[in-house]
Amino acid sequence: MTHRSRLGTLAIDCKGDDLAEAMRFWSAALGSPVRLDPDDPRYAAIDRPPDEPKLLLQTVEHSSRVHIDLETDDQEAERARIEERSARLVERHPKGWIIMEAPTGHRFCLVAPHRADFPGDAREHP
Amino acid sequence: MTHRSRLGTLAIDCKGDDLAEAMRFWSAALGSPVRLDPDDPRYAAIDRPPDEPKLLLQTVEHSSRVHIDLETDDQEAERARIEERSARLVERHPKGWIIMEAPTGHRFCLVAPHRADFPGDAREHP
Repeated sequence: MTHRSRLGTLAIDCKGDDLAEAMRFWSAALGSPVRLDPDDPRYAAIDRPPDEPKLLLQTVEHSSRVHIDLETDDQEAERARIEERSARLVERHPKGWIIMEAPTGHRFCLVAPHRADFPGDAREHP
Repeated sequence: MTHRSRLGTLAIDCKGDDLAEAMRFWSAALGSPVRLDPDDPRYAAIDRPPDEPKLLLQTVEHSSRVHIDLETDDQEAERARIEERSARLVERHPKGWIIMEAPTGHRFCLVAPHRADFPGDAREHP
């Protein structure tokens, strides 16, 4: 069985419980419309070209930072592949993503495919 | 006078003075070749599609994090525009970029154009 993965999203994590200021600032800075998720106001999508990684704002409880999501059609196979490269599992989030920590100290997530053109240029892993 | 800006680079800042481990891990995680900058081994470029934002690894003295660069054909006009949106100037780096802090707490840089297709889809600011 092979599975596939690629850079899916760049998430701008914003500490706090309200994205209004973050939406105003990042929309202006990037010159792009930002749309609050109608189903969950903890998330907002920043318009990007449809064939590029997505760009998200999200509220978080930890300090503000930026993190990467890898999108994959097999999260458990991807977790195992990444663990072999010395990343560690941090947490399985109830919303379905797997939070990992790279050997460089960066937190990142393994998520189900969410870019519309997946697999597109995703890499195949035997 | 108008100027233009857009998302230029996603930089994976790695604490320490050696990118070897970061290059191994992120190359494997993203399934992409990584090339050390022949002129400055504090930087390495991760292969991405040429019409997308660049992806860089760089050594830093602060904690590991991820940051965004905005590329612009007028860094001072862009600084003034961004300051009006409540970001603050942190430092003018000797290598030529301007380090800013967003009202959301994120550090980001204003850099000269470095994607080959600039201005491409950059936004124009009157």
